[in-house]
Amino acid sequence: QSNVTIYGSFDGGVRHTTNVDAAGNNNLTMGSTGTYNSNRIGFKGVEDLGGGLNAHFTLETGFNTGTGALDAANTLFNRTAAVGLGGAWGSLDFGRQYTVAFKTIAAYDPFGYKYPGIADAVASSAGTRYNNDIQYIGTFGAVTARAEYALGEVPGDTGASSAKSIGASYADGPLALGGAYNIRQNATGTLDTNYWTLGASYKFGPARVSAGYVNQEAEQAVGADAKTRWMWAGVNYAISPAVELTGAFYKTKLTGATTGDKDNLMLGATYALSKRTNLYGLLTNKKFDGAARALSAGNARQRDIAVGVNHLF
Amino acid sequence: QSNVTIYGSFDGGVRHTTNVDAAGNNNLTMGSTGTYNSNRIGFKGVEDLGGGLNAHFTLETGFNTGTGALDAANTLFNRTAAVGLGGAWGSLDFGRQYTVAFKTIAAYDPFGYKYPGIADAVASSAGTRYNNDIQYIGTFGAVTARAEYALGEVPGDTGASSAKSIGASYADGPLALGGAYNIRQNATGTLDTNYWTLGASYKFGPARVSAGYVNQEAEQAVGADAKTRWMWAGVNYAISPAVELTGAFYKTKLTGATTGDKDNLMLGATYALSKRTNLYGLLTNKKFDGAARALSAGNARQRDIAVGVNHLF
Amino acid sequence: QSNVTIYGSFDGGVRHTTNVDAAGNNNLTMGSTGTYNSNRIGFKGVEDLGGGLNAHFTLETGFNTGTGALDAANTLFNRTAAVGLGGAWGSLDFGRQYTVAFKTIAAYDPFGYKYPGIADAVASSAGTRYNNDIQYIGTFGAVTARAEYALGEVPGDTGASSAKSIGASYADGPLALGGAYNIRQNATGTLDTNYWTLGASYKFGPARVSAGYVNQEAEQAVGADAKTRWMWAGVNYAISPAVELTGAFYKTKLTGATTGDKDNLMLGATYALSKRTNLYGLLTNKKFDGAARALSAGNARQRDIAVGVNHLF
Repeated sequence: QSNVTIYGSFDGGVRHTTNVDAAGNNNLTMGSTGTYNSNRIGFKGVEDLGGGLNAHFTLETGFNTGTGALDAANTLFNRTAAVGLGGAWGSLDFGRQYTVAFKTIAAYDPFGYKYPGIADAVASSAGTRYNNDIQYIGTFGAVTARAEYALGEVPGDTGASSAKSIGASYADGPLALGGAYNIRQNATGTLDTNYWTLGASYKFGPARVSAGYVNQEAEQAVGADAKTRWMWAGVNYAISPAVELTGAFYKTKLTGATTGDKDNLMLGATYALSKRTNLYGLLTNKKFDGAARALSAGNARQRDIAVGVNHLF
Repeated sequence: QSNVTIYGSFDGGVRHTTNVDAAGNNNLTMGSTGTYNSNRIGFKGVEDLGGGLNAHFTLETGFNTGTGALDAANTLFNRTAAVGLGGAWGSLDFGRQYTVAFKTIAAYDPFGYKYPGIADAVASSAGTRYNNDIQYIGTFGAVTARAEYALGEVPGDTGASSAKSIGASYADGPLALGGAYNIRQNATGTLDTNYWTLGASYKFGPARVSAGYVNQEAEQAVGADAKTRWMWAGVNYAISPAVELTGAFYKTKLTGATTGDKDNLMLGATYALSKRTNLYGLLTNKKFDGAARALSAGNARQRDIAVGVNHLF
Repeated sequence: QSNVTIYGSFDGGVRHTTNVDAAGNNNLTMGSTGTYNSNRIGFKGVEDLGGGLNAHFTLETGFNTGTGALDAANTLFNRTAAVGLGGAWGSLDFGRQYTVAFKTIAAYDPFGYKYPGIADAVASSAGTRYNNDIQYIGTFGAVTARAEYALGEVPGDTGASSAKSIGASYADGPLALGGAYNIRQNATGTLDTNYWTLGASYKFGPARVSAGYVNQEAEQAVGADAKTRWMWAGVNYAISPAVELTGAFYKTKLTGATTGDKDNLMLGATYALSKRTNLYGLLTNKKFDGAARALSAGNARQRDIAVGVNHLF
């Protein structure tokens, strides 16, 4: 038992969203994988092997606030299942884990992956997690380097269904920078998706500004590549030790195979009851054009109001 | 890890039941969600926020003794997934949780929800648990007040699929009283189910007597309401600190849309090996008439013999 | 929390296998229930009841390294879900648990059930685990006796789908011996499968030799019984406290209803980074004839190379 730490996050609240279906109805919901912070319960451990070497693992389950259901059918450790070795040289991990792109973007998403189902940074992260992933991370001074190879497990074609990434982050005092490149193949190994991201954040006093850019080009069997660009900018402002405001604008732009735009303006506030528990509130105003209306059941606009409590354990 | 307590209950034993199928065969089984006490493993925690306020959560999994299977497919925390805040004013919780009716009846079910699949009190509890439930509980002296609103999450109709309840319990010395009212709507918001319960228990010396009544009226698309009444009375008697006998009679009465009766006479004994572990034994004699025979594969009678060990951890 | 111990094993690595499909393609994979040691996270506890008596339970989950998925859909505690009482007289357990044959063979499988999906000892163990199993184990000096009855839960026929076993193991100094007998019935109670196993291992200095034999005869609705014999021999050699080599040869022989052979030559090495973490490597050379080619997608040969890290917690 001393070898295992149990931790998690549990978010309870309600969300009101306009225009959730083709008829333009509103809905009031609680059921979600976490509105402000994604729900999780995890088991992790680190063993000191001596000589600076360690062995470590993480097993993390995602669940639904309103129903207690697993995030993904039969995938108990959908959020992370990874084991590896670490040392001064870095860490080498095997299993299901966050992508290099996801870890890179974390430094310059203004909402820091909060409101994962509402903000657009998670959607931009080249898949969020990969199965069968071998990932290296090394930190050398202000620089963190990352590389991964997610096995496709297709007999006779080691490229098919695989993903490969490299990335680097720089963090020094108030400044954080990051970038990543990723290439994925479809299940038959015939079509590539190319992906890159760049971004930065800068802190001054109680404020932090962040901006990011993602460019993805997915080859299609017929016709032009499907290009998706995500871009965003935002600011965090700590009014007091307990109260923080975050405002951000996310734009998603589809070109090539389909054409469309999503604009997502978000304004959030948190009130910390402790280091582990806060109250949160969010307002959004989302605009959808062209093919991006597939994200809004065909509607041109959606607005959200969400309030709740989030508890870390 | 210090933030999380792991707890649970595991019940192992065998049950012999007569007339389990249309051919009138008997069956000997172990597989169940717990014969005497329902199986569970849970994770819970409470954080002191200062000023009398706390944050708390419970995540509780149900599993099958004989197979290790989840009680409900893909619902990891089928028994409870709730997070909330508490204080002198009470507690406000969000998530999947026991209904107000269930918590009310607990005080006057002679078997105290033991033998959940055999005794009839669980079946009478207005759904046992609700998804997407917002629940308030406050205790003021001898009185506990409860109210809940379980979101229906149907776009454009906040009433459809929702459930609402209020309840109150009184506990003072040997006496416990309770009552609750509940109203639920079907998925299209066109049919209501009305529900109320009342009951009491009284302790004198080594004995406790309990009695309860539940009245439910479910509107039907065509024809009369389906009325179900559950009523029961029973007695617990502590022969010694280790040995307790419980006898109870549960009647279920269907009228209106269908007509039928179930009579369930139960006699149980427990022998405590410790505060956490006991041996148990149960005899039942169940009679089914009319539409209630749907509960017994068409048979007029069923008898159970169950023995086993239950361990709390 | 003090009542529950969390433990487990997590294996991360890659495996290259030749001839995995009818086209004779090779595959490189990570996804598995554990290549060297089967993945698990478990919760267990023992309560001292006084007078030498105890209550105990185990709940153990199996998961996939590459995906975090449950080993078996919706079966959270697929590896073990058992509760029981123990004392000087032995232990009596109820639930899903390893078969008597599995526990018997453990003493004379040279790979000690490592590489569970590659070595053939697990496949030979009369089902590995039974649902609804009542199992007795008692140890008296050098002898351990085992007996089990796994309920079939078929109404009207207590024999159908049931399994019954007896077994005995002897362990004294360098010598270990074991044998078990098992009989299973099919779901209609019309066909029996008879099974027995015998084996031994002997340690001298840094080496241990093991050999085992299993004979299974499954009645068929039409025609001759399907006979399967598994036989193996192997040696472990500890080159140093940290390095161990294991070599073994497993033969599977099908006769009667179908005819075929599988030969499996395995050579493995482990390097212990600590008592809890090791690096492993494996080479195999497998030959398939006749009906045994159903195990190799019709191919006459398969070879494996596997390397990885295994961490116990």
